Amino acid sequence: MRQEFIGTEGRVLLDTVRRLYRRKARSALGKVVKKIHPAELAWIFRHLTARERLEIFNIIKEPEVVGDFLSELDESIRLELISTLEPKRIAAVVTPMSTDDQADVLDALADDLREQVLALMRKEDAAEVEELLQYDPDTAGGIMSPDFLAMDENLKVAEAIQQVQQLSEEAEMAFYIYVVDEANKLKGVLSLRQLLMNTAGKQLANIMETDVVAVTPETDQEEVAHIVSRYNIMAVPVLDHEGIMLGIVTVDDIVDVIREEATEDFLQMVGAGKDREILLKPALQNALTRLPWLLASWVGGILAMLVISSFEEELAKVVILAGFIPVIIGMGGNIGTQSSTLTIRGLATGRVNVNRAWSFISKQVYVGMLLGVFFGVLLGLMAWLFGDSRLGGVVALAISVTMFFATLLGTFVPIILRRLDVDPAVATGPFVTTSADVLGVLIYFLLAKSLLAL
Amino acid sequence: MRQEFIGTEGRVLLDTVRRLYRRKARSALGKVVKKIHPAELAWIFRHLTARERLEIFNIIKEPEVVGDFLSELDESIRLELISTLEPKRIAAVVTPMSTDDQADVLDALADDLREQVLALMRKEDAAEVEELLQYDPDTAGGIMSPDFLAMDENLKVAEAIQQVQQLSEEAEMAFYIYVVDEANKLKGVLSLRQLLMNTAGKQLANIMETDVVAVTPETDQEEVAHIVSRYNIMAVPVLDHEGIMLGIVTVDDIVDVIREEATEDFLQMVGAGKDREILLKPALQNALTRLPWLLASWVGGILAMLVISSFEEELAKVVILAGFIPVIIGMGGNIGTQSSTLTIRGLATGRVNVNRAWSFISKQVYVGMLLGVFFGVLLGLMAWLFGDSRLGGVVALAISVTMFFATLLGTFVPIILRRLDVDPAVATGPFVTTSADVLGVLIYFLLAKSLLAL
Repeated sequence: MRQEFIGTEGRVLLDTVRRLYRRKARSALGKVVKKIHPAELAWIFRHLTARERLEIFNIIKEPEVVGDFLSELDESIRLELISTLEPKRIAAVVTPMSTDDQADVLDALADDLREQVLALMRKEDAAEVEELLQYDPDTAGGIMSPDFLAMDENLKVAEAIQQVQQLSEEAEMAFYIYVVDEANKLKGVLSLRQLLMNTAGKQLANIMETDVVAVTPETDQEEVAHIVSRYNIMAVPVLDHEGIMLGIVTVDDIVDVIREEATEDFLQMVGAGKDREILLKPALQNALTRLPWLLASWVGGILAMLVISSFEEELAKVVILAGFIPVIIGMGGNIGTQSSTLTIRGLATGRVNVNRAWSFISKQVYVGMLLGVFFGVLLGLMAWLFGDSRLGGVVALAISVTMFFATLLGTFVPIILRRLDVDPAVATGPFVTTSADVLGVLIYFLLAKSLLAL
Repeated sequence: MRQEFIGTEGRVLLDTVRRLYRRKARSALGKVVKKIHPAELAWIFRHLTARERLEIFNIIKEPEVVGDFLSELDESIRLELISTLEPKRIAAVVTPMSTDDQADVLDALADDLREQVLALMRKEDAAEVEELLQYDPDTAGGIMSPDFLAMDENLKVAEAIQQVQQLSEEAEMAFYIYVVDEANKLKGVLSLRQLLMNTAGKQLANIMETDVVAVTPETDQEEVAHIVSRYNIMAVPVLDHEGIMLGIVTVDDIVDVIREEATEDFLQMVGAGKDREILLKPALQNALTRLPWLLASWVGGILAMLVISSFEEELAKVVILAGFIPVIIGMGGNIGTQSSTLTIRGLATGRVNVNRAWSFISKQVYVGMLLGVFFGVLLGLMAWLFGDSRLGGVVALAISVTMFFATLLGTFVPIILRRLDVDPAVATGPFVTTSADVLGVLIYFLLAKSLLAL
């Protein structure tokens, strides 16, 4: 029994691979690598340098081993390794893969290299891959597998069991039997177990489940993930607009989708692009991806500077007013980010319905007021203790009002963006913090000017 | 064929339910509700008010319908509804559920109510549930199902097929057959399909796969999710320390785990606790959960204020120095958050290995320098254009240096926390932004004092 891998065992294997590599013990390395599970080998490759990866990759010779392992690799590492191979070797390596993995690998290649590889593959395989390549990789069509188990509705149970027994290994996830009519239109579904539990003479049409959840090839992968997890199913069939079955999306692909989408949401929230492979990209590209968000906040800072300069006279009279700028914009920015994160996440998980958001909004605003008053009073008390009670009062009031408005911004902006069909995860971050900054200093200096009679 | 649900169809159904409810058309409502898929009914319930929920819930009479639907509901709504029922009715409602769902429901009840319900359940069912209840809900033991298909290693294929045919509906995910010895120790695994593809006389011990990935009941659910997605398996067996099989965790539970963990990470990043049901909690509890993080940033603001007041003399001479405080702490805070998010996410997805982080760190630091210099120069140019080039130079330098240090903080703090076995998602946020604020104003005023000869 293999227990959890990425504890000490993973690190020990990684060290072994590196040691053998440094010793240039090619044949020993080849033997060790062949014994490692493809998923584990992929993990090890992620922690090697580009040079180590390439040289160790060249030691692995068998197309089957290489194929299994390539399907587990991160996209960018896979591309880095594959692009060093001859078209003929690429064709040999992808041949044992499942069609959806073949499509993933070929999709990443340059157009002319892909054409060369396709020309070298078996005709039927190439045709299936080209079929998949026409779909957007982020849709059901892009992640579906064309290898599924379809049977005619007129078959009897005994005939169906015979068909299952004669299957090649290709239908990788044969848990469900999809029942179709002569035109290949999906009529119903049956689990392998339901098949076994019925008597030999029954027709599939009479025992199949007819209420099937299905998607179209254009359905967004995030929506497919929602459906699979909502209905607790192992695979969802993909149908074209006439109901003809094109493929299935299996739950193990969905697991990857959910993980990827979460990572993308995280990155977007801090303006680090939406490419989940950003960490594997060169530094300059990394910096360029992060630049626009920082630029937005830079512009916000300049606006705040202009607001403050317009109060230069008042500042000159009470210089220490400047000291409270960080706490006011800090509290506004933080409560704004909390509110926008709760709202964005609520929208993403379906907890918040964009068309019935009022109870959510009113609760958030109430929470914002509670927290605003709390921190305002806390600062007021402190100021009173240390003697400067009038200035303290101004700052306290400014904090409360700023936190209240920042909550409003953080709650409304994502909801409005969603209504306008803009992804709230992308645009909310810089807008909310920047507006909270500028609004905060404006509120603060206006209050100071009028209440301190400057 | 049912296509995607939560488009217009969901909203139409929600409106129908609400309309019938307002009209007090109880029997029509009962009929409509019975026809809705449990997962869809759960979605609808989430968008009703607490009062609507309770009254509509009381209309649904059949324990089977109630049970299916309760397992799909959000925890807090489920608790809200169940706590209104008599113990006897609760026992009736949970009886048709699978054991892991029964445990989920009972786990949320008050201790004495749970004991009453358990006393009213069938003895075997109660014993199985109590077995599950002893495990932490965030571990493999807490999410596993004890309903799995185990067969003796000495069985022949034909006998095994007969056993499958005689199964009750209980083994919900019978895709794999777990092969055990007399002591119930796991020896290997077989898919239903592999079983069908072998001749009737073969022994299970000779055709099973013996290299099985397994977990212990104490394995953290996040680790279980990593394993299931790494090896692309449909279910992972849970073994005690003697190798005896206790249950299985199926991939559909893993989908929920991954989603929940992502939501928790998001909430933690902005200091909104780690309870993913926060949106369903009362406002005061909401505010209390968010308070500690805001308090940390409030203390940081006060520290920044103390730093600034210690430069009161210098500020009095060049009042406009105050104007650039927001841009400096804003840029530091933002690039620090970007760096810490990339690092935390990298650690969570395994892209960054805590023991081999140097290439990641050096790339991040280089990116921080690039961006720091860019925004410094941008501000310097602007200052030069508008004439105040000396002040501009000071601000430009302060921005570059602050952004550089904020990047260092954002990169190192999560890695150090992880090494100390503290969850970086919890503690990084307030620490990085607060330190970046204080450090930023300190760097800025020190540079201003020395370079402007104040």
